[in-house]
Amino acid sequence: MKPATVIVSLPAMDLDRSLRFYRDGLGLSPSEIDKTMILFELPNLSLFLIVQSEFATYASRAGVALDRVPAPGGCIISCAIGSKGELDDILARAGASGGTVSGTASEYDGSYMGYFADPDGHLWELVFNAQTEVAATGSDSSVD
Amino acid sequence: MKPATVIVSLPAMDLDRSLRFYRDGLGLSPSEIDKTMILFELPNLSLFLIVQSEFATYASRAGVALDRVPAPGGCIISCAIGSKGELDDILARAGASGGTVSGTASEYDGSYMGYFADPDGHLWELVFNAQTEVAATGSDSSVD
Repeated sequence: MKPATVIVSLPAMDLDRSLRFYRDGLGLSPSEIDKTMILFELPNLSLFLIVQSEFATYASRAGVALDRVPAPGGCIISCAIGSKGELDDILARAGASGGTVSGTASEYDGSYMGYFADPDGHLWELVFNAQTEVAATGSDSSVD
Repeated sequence: MKPATVIVSLPAMDLDRSLRFYRDGLGLSPSEIDKTMILFELPNLSLFLIVQSEFATYASRAGVALDRVPAPGGCIISCAIGSKGELDDILARAGASGGTVSGTASEYDGSYMGYFADPDGHLWELVFNAQTEVAATGSDSSVD
């Protein structure tokens, strides 16, 4: 199997609400918007938000009964974020724009991590890793 | 929000079973394998399959109760495939390797599409679009 491109689709109950959250709240620019879907082109991820009924039609072709699409929370979208401050800012925006933020960001396994759910309940993980960041930016600061 | 990289994670009950399906069945090469996760680097998608318990821990940080991770089927991974023959072949492999294939591939909206669920129930959509394919390969065949 050698796909040429890959796209991930998630269902959304209300695309206007999704736009308010992702575009107006988090500041992401949709690449495409129509009545049934919104496309976000993120680094290494093409993400479609599709209206629930349309999503259910696709899922039903794959064997999921039309009225039985599972609740969100069965996948996690993880994002590498450039600084702790930016990460905290995103969590604040998410909470202020209709998302659900669970607690504050914390250190786990050497990374600074925060979590939120979008208005539909889709889960996002934000990760700032100082070592990765230093390596990526080519800084000569010493790291352990 | 300007993530540097994005990764999508899905839970898997049995990573050996996932390996048999994705690596031995579909022919995908994992970029990384350890006891708790498998990483596949697909075009425009970094996909982690994470053991269920580990996934539940991450999801619980985002507000999903540890024992309440929703059933798979809440997201669809769509792949552009290069030909009808290749698409049919992938469906046959998926069915022979522990996946669930719902019917045969069919034409929808001008594309040839097929669907399967992996052994955990995660949904994949395969799409061959003759027009897109011609455009992508720079063929001078006329298309409407």
